[in-house]
Amino acid sequence: MCERPLIAVISGSLQPDGLTHRIARAVETIAADRLNIRHVPIGHLPLYNPALEADGASVPVWTTFREAVAPADGVLFVTPEYNRSVPAALKNAVDVGSRPYGASVFSSKPAGIISQSPGALGGFGANHHLRQSLVFLDMPAMQQPEMYLGHSSALFGEEGELVEGQGKTLLETFVAAFAVWVDRHPVRQG
Amino acid sequence: MCERPLIAVISGSLQPDGLTHRIARAVETIAADRLNIRHVPIGHLPLYNPALEADGASVPVWTTFREAVAPADGVLFVTPEYNRSVPAALKNAVDVGSRPYGASVFSSKPAGIISQSPGALGGFGANHHLRQSLVFLDMPAMQQPEMYLGHSSALFGEEGELVEGQGKTLLETFVAAFAVWVDRHPVRQG
Amino acid sequence: MCERPLIAVISGSLQPDGLTHRIARAVETIAADRLNIRHVPIGHLPLYNPALEADGASVPVWTTFREAVAPADGVLFVTPEYNRSVPAALKNAVDVGSRPYGASVFSSKPAGIISQSPGALGGFGANHHLRQSLVFLDMPAMQQPEMYLGHSSALFGEEGELVEGQGKTLLETFVAAFAVWVDRHPVRQG
Amino acid sequence: MCERPLIAVISGSLQPDGLTHRIARAVETIAADRLNIRHVPIGHLPLYNPALEADGASVPVWTTFREAVAPADGVLFVTPEYNRSVPAALKNAVDVGSRPYGASVFSSKPAGIISQSPGALGGFGANHHLRQSLVFLDMPAMQQPEMYLGHSSALFGEEGELVEGQGKTLLETFVAAFAVWVDRHPVRQG
Repeated sequence: MCERPLIAVISGSLQPDGLTHRIARAVETIAADRLNIRHVPIGHLPLYNPALEADGASVPVWTTFREAVAPADGVLFVTPEYNRSVPAALKNAVDVGSRPYGASVFSSKPAGIISQSPGALGGFGANHHLRQSLVFLDMPAMQQPEMYLGHSSALFGEEGELVEGQGKTLLETFVAAFAVWVDRHPVRQG
Repeated sequence: MCERPLIAVISGSLQPDGLTHRIARAVETIAADRLNIRHVPIGHLPLYNPALEADGASVPVWTTFREAVAPADGVLFVTPEYNRSVPAALKNAVDVGSRPYGASVFSSKPAGIISQSPGALGGFGANHHLRQSLVFLDMPAMQQPEMYLGHSSALFGEEGELVEGQGKTLLETFVAAFAVWVDRHPVRQG
Repeated sequence: MCERPLIAVISGSLQPDGLTHRIARAVETIAADRLNIRHVPIGHLPLYNPALEADGASVPVWTTFREAVAPADGVLFVTPEYNRSVPAALKNAVDVGSRPYGASVFSSKPAGIISQSPGALGGFGANHHLRQSLVFLDMPAMQQPEMYLGHSSALFGEEGELVEGQGKTLLETFVAAFAVWVDRHPVRQG
Repeated sequence: MCERPLIAVISGSLQPDGLTHRIARAVETIAADRLNIRHVPIGHLPLYNPALEADGASVPVWTTFREAVAPADGVLFVTPEYNRSVPAALKNAVDVGSRPYGASVFSSKPAGIISQSPGALGGFGANHHLRQSLVFLDMPAMQQPEMYLGHSSALFGEEGELVEGQGKTLLETFVAAFAVWVDRHPVRQG
């Protein structure tokens, strides 16, 4: 019998009841049989500044964040778009996890990206800016299905539940593909 | 007689003695006759989160940051590249200054961008990701001369002074063009 | 009395009855009082290859294209998206018009961008990839209003006419802003 | 015994003796033991226009191009940068090979990207614009090592041979990693 792979989910919004986190939780439900989801918080991380780790100093919450991501078999980013790019909080998590040089916790982990917006565009700008960072981070990025969830508030019903419809179907297809992607990209050891 | 335009300089590095800040100070010296430079700090700003300003709440350091940028006649961004994009600290300053909706302090201000890296690429990825945000912020962005300062540590001598050479000449050309750009793009009032 | 500025319209689609050209013609109608629109064809241009102009050789259709753009006071790009970027035909027009080095017909001309798609995303990827080229071309690019026309087939009625509604209003707002943008950015002479 | 995988090499320059093609041939030499390189020409392809294939029509040189790429086990793009993006000729090859919808010859093929420039920046803009297209094309893109070959004329000696040095070492590392990447990403059948 086979263990489900551990997936670190990093949500680019700091609003726990916002659409981004609701999508992240919906993914957890959809993926329950296949993926072991770990939501990793990022809102409390100080802005990345290499000087804070100079001369052997450490920033405990950065360390804790890295330790939460390190054992994962893959990373799923779920994000809104701010100013046509990734929110600062998400970029900060990327910067913190990627340092110090040579000790990135992201290296070689397979990645999936879901972007969302209340408007029509579905966070396209955030989605692809993040992809450019993933190149440097050496994270094999799943290409298809792309997931730009526009009009994202329509995904949920009055009780906050994911409603039946195209959005739910897209997420199910995405999760199934991501499980295969993670399986095909085992993390490089040591 | 004419007052020099006020330029808010936002530096994407949190290391006050790092190359980014040294370039920002070199620009100040070069521009002394033409531009009134105001270095606006960003390292202390909490990660942007709209919930912190809900229901009439305010975040005093965000307010102070916005008030420092608001009167400027233009904004100059000087930035390194982290993970092929803008550092989180700079994106955070962009996000904080751009909100709340309808009250962005950046709106219609002319912008210049200098990116730098110790390696060859000169922060091209950060430069253009920032430009994508400037579209949303409605900041007329100076297109030429582009300024990708590669091998940026070679710009400075042993005493930290900007050395004569191609880098200095590029910065002088950039500053002269930026002064014209700012002059041609008066900020929209009210 | 004042002449209307001459605007070269470059459409990224090679289908004369397609949505892109219909939008370009709708812009012409909307702008009739303010802008003198010249549709510049691009579909017949051979792929840009600097070798074809080596040693004093010339490619007559490239020359004709450049001569059609050269006198314009501004350039309006209207484009679909192919494979999340600009169509090859549009990139080719950009490449042809930008060469030989030092003789770009685009230099300093103010630019507007309309992207469109039959789906929801409105050609966001094409829009911003083109913007990255405009930096190099030294074309001041209008930032707002951004124009991502999604579901673009809904813009038109059964007779091919632009229907009343949000899309038409967006285009009217865009054209008014672009006329001001062109007026504020006179082309640099010689 | 094992056959070497077939790699379609698509070069974004139309100058057969230019730096891009020289790099492509150098890769062939370096990879001789591991990869079966097929250089696929693109300069003669008419600009992509879906109307040319409407109603059962075909464009024979498009068909030939697609047939040359279709059997490949991977695709290696080698490209210069024009106007901070991919050359029109390369974008055209991408557009031609990706259509008609549902019959893309690129789908699921693993991809590598080498960008080059005679200047310092190494074609960063072309490299990442192409990557954005690869997302839509569903081509798993090798992330590391990134390959931005700046000052590319210095790669070659007087006889046109690849000289010993950092550039050659980078290419060797790239080719070794790409061979592994291709091996790990078998093309999806039918």
